[in-house]
Amino acid sequence: MRATVIHAPGDIRVEDVPGPRIVKPTDAIIRTVATCVCGSDLWPYRGLEPVGDPHPMGHEYVGVVEETGSEVTHVKPGQFVVGSFATSDNTCANCRKGWQSSCLNREFMSTCQAEYVRIPNAHGTLVATDEHPSGDLVPGLLAVSDVMGTGWYAALAAEVKPGSTAVVVGDGAVGLCGVIAAKELGAERIIAMSRHESRQKLALEFGATDIVTERGEDGVTRIKDLTGGIGADSVLECVGTAQSMRQALHSARPGGNVGFVGVPHEVAVDGQELFFSQVGLRGGPAPVRRYLPDLIDRVLSGHINPGKVFDLTLPLDQVAEGYKAMDERRAIKTLLTP
Amino acid sequence: MRATVIHAPGDIRVEDVPGPRIVKPTDAIIRTVATCVCGSDLWPYRGLEPVGDPHPMGHEYVGVVEETGSEVTHVKPGQFVVGSFATSDNTCANCRKGWQSSCLNREFMSTCQAEYVRIPNAHGTLVATDEHPSGDLVPGLLAVSDVMGTGWYAALAAEVKPGSTAVVVGDGAVGLCGVIAAKELGAERIIAMSRHESRQKLALEFGATDIVTERGEDGVTRIKDLTGGIGADSVLECVGTAQSMRQALHSARPGGNVGFVGVPHEVAVDGQELFFSQVGLRGGPAPVRRYLPDLIDRVLSGHINPGKVFDLTLPLDQVAEGYKAMDERRAIKTLLTP
Repeated sequence: MRATVIHAPGDIRVEDVPGPRIVKPTDAIIRTVATCVCGSDLWPYRGLEPVGDPHPMGHEYVGVVEETGSEVTHVKPGQFVVGSFATSDNTCANCRKGWQSSCLNREFMSTCQAEYVRIPNAHGTLVATDEHPSGDLVPGLLAVSDVMGTGWYAALAAEVKPGSTAVVVGDGAVGLCGVIAAKELGAERIIAMSRHESRQKLALEFGATDIVTERGEDGVTRIKDLTGGIGADSVLECVGTAQSMRQALHSARPGGNVGFVGVPHEVAVDGQELFFSQVGLRGGPAPVRRYLPDLIDRVLSGHINPGKVFDLTLPLDQVAEGYKAMDERRAIKTLLTP
Repeated sequence: MRATVIHAPGDIRVEDVPGPRIVKPTDAIIRTVATCVCGSDLWPYRGLEPVGDPHPMGHEYVGVVEETGSEVTHVKPGQFVVGSFATSDNTCANCRKGWQSSCLNREFMSTCQAEYVRIPNAHGTLVATDEHPSGDLVPGLLAVSDVMGTGWYAALAAEVKPGSTAVVVGDGAVGLCGVIAAKELGAERIIAMSRHESRQKLALEFGATDIVTERGEDGVTRIKDLTGGIGADSVLECVGTAQSMRQALHSARPGGNVGFVGVPHEVAVDGQELFFSQVGLRGGPAPVRRYLPDLIDRVLSGHINPGKVFDLTLPLDQVAEGYKAMDERRAIKTLLTP
């Protein structure tokens, strides 16, 4: 089959590789209907994370079940399925508490930019739709498998509540989905921090009420101006750098919350500063599995349309251009059709 | 009047100093009925924080109002009052949201180990009891002004809920009050980490169901053993060192919460580690003012007795011995009677 392989920073190729096989009775194989490039894929692409040996890429997927292991009984070949980038058995102690992204048997997906994918823990990971969705709904369902689920988690971790004020740091696909989540959860005011016109436009379409273009302490000053001098109730940190984390923490009011979902790179939080800020902080890989049924419903009913974050669609063979366009910020997020 | 002054690490004296006066119309002067030595007072006493010029000490107090500024109308001379170590106007944007310890006009108390004390922001800070309490209730009310309020905040920040499992790191007065708080908030299992027999005993009396004597990663292993392998729902960090913070973070399950109330000293939290732990973290100086009416009621009704953390009572003149006994861990907490 055709699959994406990274060889070195900037060197992404589609190659012929052996197709996946069932390894454990809890596995399933799916034929990928759509997959995509994640902001986190850009870390190794940009050389900001070691690449190591050439290896496959991709952790977002929707597809059709091809084959199931003997213990996978709730999905059947031919069904359209959505799953999380973090697989989960959905039965362990963490899963039972709703923290499937910390499943004791978790395996992170990493081979999804390909024609076929093996899904470990398929029984606990995949959620089938009643019927095959129409093509226009596929991007939204693909978004649910990661960026929309992650934006949702960011908003919950930041404790967005009806009537609250939310700030979204980061105007990538996750941040934009965070705007959707904040709106769905009832935030009255949603301030998107963005300096890119196309992303500002999408943020406003998704429900942002204010745009702040300043960054760092200037950005924080603007947020304070907009929030009665004390900061926001909820801040969604959707980048993962030391600067964005500082910006997020300083934008929240005492007693407010920061939900951080950008994988932190060289971020250390000073204990005493966090202490006196009285800001609550929770991050992590989103427990997307917990939200899947709800978010799939919201997409299929047309209530939300997170698929709009895909502003570039390419055939899998052009994956290199998909990475390049995102790296150069020509595209928010690239959808790939195998 | 007689007041405590620190001159250098280990050098605590009672001296004759001018009595306090009303400086602002929002001030009150109280005659101290009881005050005490805090674990945080030991940082400069031990030379772990700079002492600087000789200065007064103490931030915990209950007393009788002597005099009030012109804008202080809700308490009157002669009334018995309890207040927080952090003063607050109780009207600013942060106060209105219940975060009085981040009051925009906050002044931290720092002169309370003395016969008389000036209370800034008296109008928003002091809560009067209906009548003068009997002597046996005074220690409990004094505890409410800081350690009990702080333990309460730790339990709330750690999101202790009915039926949950709580771990308390630190067996000082705050940790012990954290046990009381966890029990009052409905924790089903309360694990106190302590290796001191007298403190273990008090923890059990306050509602602890388990004692863990191991520290560091050995302690974490024990906690995991006691919590089905995943860690506790809620952890109250009541020390403030890098080791205790690590122990607390590692003792919480994914999706669990750490409330940290020990003022952090040289603590940095690694962003990526916190991310993958999925533990929620909130700390800070407790918004004691928010809890005062409720906690005063619980003490006056005899429902809780946090006054038991005072296992040494000395006249103010012997304050030096009070510090020494706590430094040498001969006493949990020293109450001083001016």
